[in-house]
Amino acid sequence: MQNDEQAIRDLIADWQSAAAAGEVGRLRDMMAEDVVFLLPGQVPMQGRQAFLAAFEDGLKHYRIASQAEIKEIDVAADLAYCWTKLAVTVTPHQQGLPMQRCGHVLTILKKRDARWVIVRDANMLTPQPDGTPAERS
Amino acid sequence: MQNDEQAIRDLIADWQSAAAAGEVGRLRDMMAEDVVFLLPGQVPMQGRQAFLAAFEDGLKHYRIASQAEIKEIDVAADLAYCWTKLAVTVTPHQQGLPMQRCGHVLTILKKRDARWVIVRDANMLTPQPDGTPAERS
Repeated sequence: MQNDEQAIRDLIADWQSAAAAGEVGRLRDMMAEDVVFLLPGQVPMQGRQAFLAAFEDGLKHYRIASQAEIKEIDVAADLAYCWTKLAVTVTPHQQGLPMQRCGHVLTILKKRDARWVIVRDANMLTPQPDGTPAERS
Repeated sequence: MQNDEQAIRDLIADWQSAAAAGEVGRLRDMMAEDVVFLLPGQVPMQGRQAFLAAFEDGLKHYRIASQAEIKEIDVAADLAYCWTKLAVTVTPHQQGLPMQRCGHVLTILKKRDARWVIVRDANMLTPQPDGTPAERS
């Protein structure tokens, strides 16, 4: 369990670093082919290909930096969840101010072929008005 | 596993029926004492007492009806998740029109003392403008 928890912590850190570097191949390896991303007010984004296509399209327009605070990881057999508090800054390449989104994420992971991958992700980030301090706790 | 999945389906149905009937005692039994509810743009609601106090306060002002479509249940040992598409209608007792919120919920459950209880809940419901058809899928 200790090793599983550390593996999941490493995956969350790797995800952030790969997203910031725009390394799509690394992101691909961290999620299941049938991954589902859930967001407020949007149709679920189903499948790794859909996510990667949207991510690559985004890379043309902006770069992404994020800070994650892991609140909790819980593992049972080959299933785990991770609750993260996340702050994401999206900075346009061309013009416009950086935009920040903050909030909580609940991620489901599975161990497949001895590796943890993301299978479901509930993203509750909301736009952070410029100059407003992030919500506490 | 089959029995666990059915038990979780029953719990989701019971939750809706208890919420609609305003039966706080039944809701209490369906969640862990240290349950956490995550919502966009809000500080996490931590603990059963906080939830029940907010729920009871709400009952003074409106009644709640909900329709859940279970998209997926997955169980491993004593941990499970349930992805639900939910439509909630909140109708004021006094005046004002019913308000509808729709969207997806990702719920984490644990088996404690041979019973499944809700431990974490990521609620991505958004207000549904009057007359707008709910998002598909």
